[in-house]
Amino acid sequence: MIQVRVRPGVEKKIRGFFPWVYRPEIAGFSKEPKKGDFVVVRDYSGKFLGYGYVNPEANISIRIVSFKKEEPISKELIVKRIEEALNYRKRLNLDSNAYRLVHSEGDLLPGLIVDIYDRYAVVEFTTYGMNKMREWVIEALIELLKPAGIWEKTNPYISSVEGFDVGGGLLYGEVPEEVLIWEHDLRFLVNIPQGQKTGFFLDQRRARKIIREFVKPGDECLDFFCHSGGFALNMKRKGASKVIAVDISPSALQMGRRCEKLNGLDGIEWVEENAFDFLRALHKQGKSFDVVVIDPPSFAKNRAAVPNALRGYKELCLRGIHLTKPGGYLAVFSCSFHIGREELLQVISSAAYDARRELRVVAESYQDLDHPWILQIPNTLYLKGIYLEVL
Amino acid sequence: MIQVRVRPGVEKKIRGFFPWVYRPEIAGFSKEPKKGDFVVVRDYSGKFLGYGYVNPEANISIRIVSFKKEEPISKELIVKRIEEALNYRKRLNLDSNAYRLVHSEGDLLPGLIVDIYDRYAVVEFTTYGMNKMREWVIEALIELLKPAGIWEKTNPYISSVEGFDVGGGLLYGEVPEEVLIWEHDLRFLVNIPQGQKTGFFLDQRRARKIIREFVKPGDECLDFFCHSGGFALNMKRKGASKVIAVDISPSALQMGRRCEKLNGLDGIEWVEENAFDFLRALHKQGKSFDVVVIDPPSFAKNRAAVPNALRGYKELCLRGIHLTKPGGYLAVFSCSFHIGREELLQVISSAAYDARRELRVVAESYQDLDHPWILQIPNTLYLKGIYLEVL
Repeated sequence: MIQVRVRPGVEKKIRGFFPWVYRPEIAGFSKEPKKGDFVVVRDYSGKFLGYGYVNPEANISIRIVSFKKEEPISKELIVKRIEEALNYRKRLNLDSNAYRLVHSEGDLLPGLIVDIYDRYAVVEFTTYGMNKMREWVIEALIELLKPAGIWEKTNPYISSVEGFDVGGGLLYGEVPEEVLIWEHDLRFLVNIPQGQKTGFFLDQRRARKIIREFVKPGDECLDFFCHSGGFALNMKRKGASKVIAVDISPSALQMGRRCEKLNGLDGIEWVEENAFDFLRALHKQGKSFDVVVIDPPSFAKNRAAVPNALRGYKELCLRGIHLTKPGGYLAVFSCSFHIGREELLQVISSAAYDARRELRVVAESYQDLDHPWILQIPNTLYLKGIYLEVL
Repeated sequence: MIQVRVRPGVEKKIRGFFPWVYRPEIAGFSKEPKKGDFVVVRDYSGKFLGYGYVNPEANISIRIVSFKKEEPISKELIVKRIEEALNYRKRLNLDSNAYRLVHSEGDLLPGLIVDIYDRYAVVEFTTYGMNKMREWVIEALIELLKPAGIWEKTNPYISSVEGFDVGGGLLYGEVPEEVLIWEHDLRFLVNIPQGQKTGFFLDQRRARKIIREFVKPGDECLDFFCHSGGFALNMKRKGASKVIAVDISPSALQMGRRCEKLNGLDGIEWVEENAFDFLRALHKQGKSFDVVVIDPPSFAKNRAAVPNALRGYKELCLRGIHLTKPGGYLAVFSCSFHIGREELLQVISSAAYDARRELRVVAESYQDLDHPWILQIPNTLYLKGIYLEVL
């Protein structure tokens, strides 16, 4: 196998389980590597650090899959990692038949996402190196889960940047166009091929539960960027008298309407509209609400987009504050990897200033526990939620 | 009333509800103020900003009590603030008859702490200015709560720095030496005169509930700096087969033993020992545990103490990691105002490196919601808890 030595000093963070080696940190290869090759990572003096796969073109040139000398990359290791991931999820009380089974670096399987919806698995490959191991992954999933079907949903943009062909679509068994899942006491329909991400926002499971603590029977509520109404349905279940759910996507709203019926609920107003415009319109009309949720898509796909993204979040927060009744609650989420908790708090603080309203933080949430984050890469805690009482 | 003008620019943060004016931010007083005088705070051009009280000797020279022109400081305002604080707590589901009713700046009553234990109130004054309003406070508490008794527990160090006499002791009605409180399904004895803080660590209520999620029947658990065993009792209630609770204070342990009996539990090993020494000893013996809690007192009472405090935390984390079985859980807390969440995460990360163990953050908690924090002063989120799975 190809040997890589890292520059002096870099070994420290790898020994601390930091799973990436950046290009400038590499001192040399024993042989010119090809994209996707397995490598042994060593410190400058030659001591073992880990096994990884390489992408010489990428800034993150090596992703480490194993820190143990006795565990080189092999099909057995992939099976073991997925088994460990499964055992971890079994220990969590997720109260749902839909969950993230593999969360890339968070499960020491960099470049692999696996989501489970009832008896079906959805896989996504985000690196060339992991895609090269796809047969191992698929076989491991079949062995360990005995799923009814496996669907691949790799992002074509990512696969083109990484330089591999998207497999895509059905990989094993059969996968219906819609899968019925449950979460706590609600049921949801998931359209695996058409839905956002792998079909459902699994990472907000915990937030959907927390929001119930703030909704009282009879409340008037708003759910912005509602997708298929995850928050809206929880609000209605808790007895809200009025729920307005806003999204730009007609198919997401259509799904939301069907989920509403499926749960024996009714009366949610599904509004197909740009959330920014609708927030402004509601504010102009002088409306206000007891509970307002704003859960936008990531505005900052990269570092350069952060300043604009912060302006976007601030506008949303400002409008959200204006639309919340005194003593009501506002929940603001950011799923941008590049925007940390502190930055989000600053944006909220600045919006509070402009709105001349006092805010009290009454809860915080992060991505649910089936999306483990890595202490060594703090921003892998990508999903932040701040729940505010607006005085 | 004495008028204060702040320097140009300072008005911006006060309009954003920042409740302090530092000495160098003051442009001038209309008349030389005495300590504890009420003042009207104005921007440089004379526009109204708020009402506060002054301490010309302190770095935080003015603490603002009202941002509204129509609400000057008066007994009525104090009553209104305490009423608002009470209404806020009523909306929370604290599941206990013990809670913090007034949390200083968090309730816009700077310098005042009020904790409720069943029918008894414990008050603490932490500033000269608030102590000057003590009669209003006590009358307001009697009016609003009709308590059986009110006890004052002002810290003599703080009162000497601020320059007022400690009232101390019984202020109204009667207060027994011990009060029985309940929290979820456990009961605790609180010794108001002798116990730490106002008698009980109310701010860890939420953490005590979370720790139960990680304890399984049959587990072996450790509770360091256990005081009267808040975590230990929850571990035992969840079915832990072995619980070792360590504290340096014999009276705290004695209280813990009695609480154990009171709840019909037994078998907790109460160890009177310095936690650092005991951690080392256990580690030397090669012992390891399923769930380890480390909840030390504040090591950093001021900014200067932070580097030493971080070393202390790191040692605790390192020992805690060593004592946790693979797949077990470690919960680390810091209640230091001067040490933020990010610093605590860094310490943990660095300890993980030294211990050569991988960690996964599985939960976080903060002070419970009856201790509201101020968005404008992020460190008022003083109590941070990180729950780790140690791989």
